[in-house]
Amino acid sequence: MAELTTSSGTRISFTMRIAQIVFSCSSLLFMSLGVEFYGYTAFCYLVTVMGLLIPWSFTLAVVDGYSVLIESPLRQPGIQMIIIIGDWVLSLLALSAACATAGVIDLLPQLKGFHCPSSLCSRYQISAIMAFLSWFHTAASALLNLWLFHSM
Amino acid sequence: MAELTTSSGTRISFTMRIAQIVFSCSSLLFMSLGVEFYGYTAFCYLVTVMGLLIPWSFTLAVVDGYSVLIESPLRQPGIQMIIIIGDWVLSLLALSAACATAGVIDLLPQLKGFHCPSSLCSRYQISAIMAFLSWFHTAASALLNLWLFHSM
Repeated sequence: MAELTTSSGTRISFTMRIAQIVFSCSSLLFMSLGVEFYGYTAFCYLVTVMGLLIPWSFTLAVVDGYSVLIESPLRQPGIQMIIIIGDWVLSLLALSAACATAGVIDLLPQLKGFHCPSSLCSRYQISAIMAFLSWFHTAASALLNLWLFHSM
Repeated sequence: MAELTTSSGTRISFTMRIAQIVFSCSSLLFMSLGVEFYGYTAFCYLVTVMGLLIPWSFTLAVVDGYSVLIESPLRQPGIQMIIIIGDWVLSLLALSAACATAGVIDLLPQLKGFHCPSSLCSRYQISAIMAFLSWFHTAASALLNLWLFHSM
């Protein structure tokens, strides 16, 4: 039952961090490479949030990976609380950015002087889907940690 | 300490439900009265979510009000769990609707054939702000209930 007293530093947590990194990087790359995202506030916001989420998840993935290697899950309540708060804040930011992006993508064809080739529009859509998946994994981490934190 | 073992059926919970109703109704009215909201998916989504949030908060406000009157907070774990899940789902929907609306409002002046008098644009903005406030109170209820549920 050692796996269930706290999530950080376990294989489950490590897997979720890797998923967050993969989806956040995909979202960032699909939005920023070869596409003029900086003309729209929502797209800039998405890029900023993903730029915050990637180093956060990467740092925690390294910590979790090290904890898995030395077979000693994190148990310090102070660090756990910081991880929970950070996860919650970033998951809310990721959800808000993904929703704002989805709302804007829906309106793109109606914009003045906007020409949207299907390849361009589909890249924006894939970026939004990846942002939603990234949010889902961050929120799952946060919820699991909050739930298990109480059991410590 | 009776107030701290569970939030539902207490004065704190009742106050938060009233705030949710006030902000949700304001958001719905500013968006739907005299404004052509149905042309934009994000605005229709906001109206739908607020249409779900109002009866939910109203029902729980009645339950909380009754519990406060008879001075007996709710303590059934099953009902508590349903309230927590409902609050979480609705708070996420409210946040996503508010963010999509905010993203769309930012783009309105650039739309083809869209004329935006300041009174109309400011109504959309007020509606989005009210939706954010409604989300904040629903999320606070959900977080408080989830935290206290573990203490039962």
